[in-house]
Amino acid sequence: MQQNTDQDSARIQVRKLDSSGAGFQQQLSTLLAFEAETDDAIESAVATILADVKRRGDAAVLEYTNKFDRIPGGAASMAAFDIGQDELQQALAALPDAQRAALQVAAERIRVFHERQKQELNGFTYTEADGTVLGQRVTPLDRVGIYVPGGKAAYPSSVLMNAIPAQVAGVKEIVMVVPTPDGVKNRMVLAAAAIAGVTRVITIGGAQAVGALAYGTETIGAVDKIVGPGNAYVAAAKRRVFGTVGIDMIAGPSEILVLCDGSTDPDWVAMDLFSQAEHDELAQAILLCPDAEYIARVEASIHKLLPTMPRRATIATSMSDRGALVKVRDMDEACAIANHIAAEHLEISAAEPQQWADQIRHAGAMFLGRFSSESLGDYCCGPNHVLPTSRTARFSSPLGVYDFQKRSSVLFVSEAGAQTLGKVAAELAYGEGLQAHARSAELRLQAGVGNDDSTPS
Amino acid sequence: MQQNTDQDSARIQVRKLDSSGAGFQQQLSTLLAFEAETDDAIESAVATILADVKRRGDAAVLEYTNKFDRIPGGAASMAAFDIGQDELQQALAALPDAQRAALQVAAERIRVFHERQKQELNGFTYTEADGTVLGQRVTPLDRVGIYVPGGKAAYPSSVLMNAIPAQVAGVKEIVMVVPTPDGVKNRMVLAAAAIAGVTRVITIGGAQAVGALAYGTETIGAVDKIVGPGNAYVAAAKRRVFGTVGIDMIAGPSEILVLCDGSTDPDWVAMDLFSQAEHDELAQAILLCPDAEYIARVEASIHKLLPTMPRRATIATSMSDRGALVKVRDMDEACAIANHIAAEHLEISAAEPQQWADQIRHAGAMFLGRFSSESLGDYCCGPNHVLPTSRTARFSSPLGVYDFQKRSSVLFVSEAGAQTLGKVAAELAYGEGLQAHARSAELRLQAGVGNDDSTPS
Repeated sequence: MQQNTDQDSARIQVRKLDSSGAGFQQQLSTLLAFEAETDDAIESAVATILADVKRRGDAAVLEYTNKFDRIPGGAASMAAFDIGQDELQQALAALPDAQRAALQVAAERIRVFHERQKQELNGFTYTEADGTVLGQRVTPLDRVGIYVPGGKAAYPSSVLMNAIPAQVAGVKEIVMVVPTPDGVKNRMVLAAAAIAGVTRVITIGGAQAVGALAYGTETIGAVDKIVGPGNAYVAAAKRRVFGTVGIDMIAGPSEILVLCDGSTDPDWVAMDLFSQAEHDELAQAILLCPDAEYIARVEASIHKLLPTMPRRATIATSMSDRGALVKVRDMDEACAIANHIAAEHLEISAAEPQQWADQIRHAGAMFLGRFSSESLGDYCCGPNHVLPTSRTARFSSPLGVYDFQKRSSVLFVSEAGAQTLGKVAAELAYGEGLQAHARSAELRLQAGVGNDDSTPS
Repeated sequence: MQQNTDQDSARIQVRKLDSSGAGFQQQLSTLLAFEAETDDAIESAVATILADVKRRGDAAVLEYTNKFDRIPGGAASMAAFDIGQDELQQALAALPDAQRAALQVAAERIRVFHERQKQELNGFTYTEADGTVLGQRVTPLDRVGIYVPGGKAAYPSSVLMNAIPAQVAGVKEIVMVVPTPDGVKNRMVLAAAAIAGVTRVITIGGAQAVGALAYGTETIGAVDKIVGPGNAYVAAAKRRVFGTVGIDMIAGPSEILVLCDGSTDPDWVAMDLFSQAEHDELAQAILLCPDAEYIARVEASIHKLLPTMPRRATIATSMSDRGALVKVRDMDEACAIANHIAAEHLEISAAEPQQWADQIRHAGAMFLGRFSSESLGDYCCGPNHVLPTSRTARFSSPLGVYDFQKRSSVLFVSEAGAQTLGKVAAELAYGEGLQAHARSAELRLQAGVGNDDSTPS
């Protein structure tokens, strides 16, 4: 990957592809290819830290935190890492009014959207003719851990997006961990925790925080699931504790795919591409458009606007290395390509966008129409901004209330039901060579056992 | 782990615990502790096979299959591994009538239950006062792979339980792989595939089959998700391809937890414990009961019934090594312990079981009342028998239609909505230092841009 400085960012060169060209499929595959590197040194360090936290608990977490986060003076006990609700409320009160109001509006809108998700999933129950009752119960997780990165990449919006769905789901304890490198706290992150209903904030991070949440320590109860983004150490730790606790997806670089019919202000499209590219040098921003002349206008806007961006170096690298402006035959083909890409963020910047949205089968979030910039969704429309990346929208979903709920099947077989079902079960169990299964069903075939009180009423 | 032969199985000794005893919490933790071993030799072999299948495609799959499955004579091409729909239908027709009928009844009941799951999840959409439309769309996966073990552990019921939810979800292509060691096909498995709507059956297995499904080969299209149980090689391969495709959970040993008030026929309870223990020497069967005298009766039933079981060696090992009969204070305490265990299968074998079920927060499936033996649920009640094990019911769910669907957020912001939302988004984006996000929102604040045709109508 080339390193751009602010000086050479003017030399940005975004690849231009044509879907009619020979080898387009191969070009597209190469463009989309991304494999997260697994670094043996990180894996080994993380394994050591997790084992140590599991064995020594608080003592290990304290040592690693003092060391890795360079806590000034060194904390003497875990109690030093707890931030009380008072301090969270103070952080909220201390924000500039406009910022506090913006956080509150965003939180309220996120809550409204996620309440809809909760309403959708109620479980069900039905009774059969013989009195047998079958159903599915939906219940919240008990305790959830939310990982929030510290330092530069601390995003209050991510606190809202991770904590609010958990709260809406009915999770009783929401424990947020956030490292404070050099002891520096991020006021806006703490304010977001206050708004989002986080029940405890602990200023620890890294693999040691993931281990503490997964295994529990003397002062931190084990959680049932850990969500939230982190660096390579955090990602490796989450992978390793998966099974002991649930985890959310391991996110890849962020992506935007813009489908444009060629009639949106090209500055808007260029800036939308930038808004993804500024995240990360590995981020991916792609435009699909049937109009070559329009693509040239977007390219001109890119060159015009790039020098005005504070994060132009990151944008230039991302756009040069992983971006593309793709001329397609028509919008139908754009939709077909979009289904292959299964983008995290899909903007359909076109007149009557619904006609194209109807052709989309795979996307984390769809932004329809020229006014639906991805950035509105990132902060405050209401839907979650934690979305499946790297083509995983083919099989996974935005973070949601459902990630903080689970289902249990409920089976209440009547005595009459046991007679008919028992014969079927026994037949199949013998066929599979599982005789205890068969006998267990057959024992219930005995009539008149006088256990009627256990039949569903 | 001790090896039992059929002869010494009479010497079974099931541990008896008392929740009032000192050290019960520690005893329970030790009892529940299970860590899947990761075998470096298996990991390394699987990594090699997957890389080879990714690189060489069909040629690699063909070689590994001929070798590992000892295909008689050796297949000359991948075409030899395809089983056509004709052969599936012939397998179904060739079954004994009672077996075919039982499979069909089970399939129909499974379908009815899973249709209810599908009805529950429809997505939603709502329009705000300024015309902004927000919603969530639910769509099926395109292509799914179902792994079915070959040889001894081939379970037709698992074919139904994995394939029917996918079909109900609307998955167009359901590709089943099932190894045929020594070229031997399992007629009942093929018959189940015919009933369950599997669209293609390929007689390959192991890590090579997982690789073929995940990466695709010349003759096998890549799928979006792989589900179904398998041996340690298959489990390791699924873990490794996770991210490229979705996977279901990696299942641990099967478990049953019986809560009994002491008034069920003790033979029934003993046989229910056996029905789990016969699966696997690592399977876990636990009884919680407030009545010590009743526990002694169940123990007597265990000793009486064990010699009659064809799989008594496996049952004896499982019950001795991992089973327990636990005297609890009362049924309320039993429920509290059940919430800690978060069992895969929870039987509440008691009068008026709903009162106890109401106290349960975590269980894969709850079987209420004396007639609801787990074996009925395993085969034909309708709910899925693929359930979370090893305490993962704290955060995960039975396999279901929802595992073959995913959600996409839909955001269609009106011009008016972009004005209010844009200011909020810009405020927060500047706060996070993401200026392109802010500018992207601010560009939409310009009035009268004449793009009204893209506003939701």
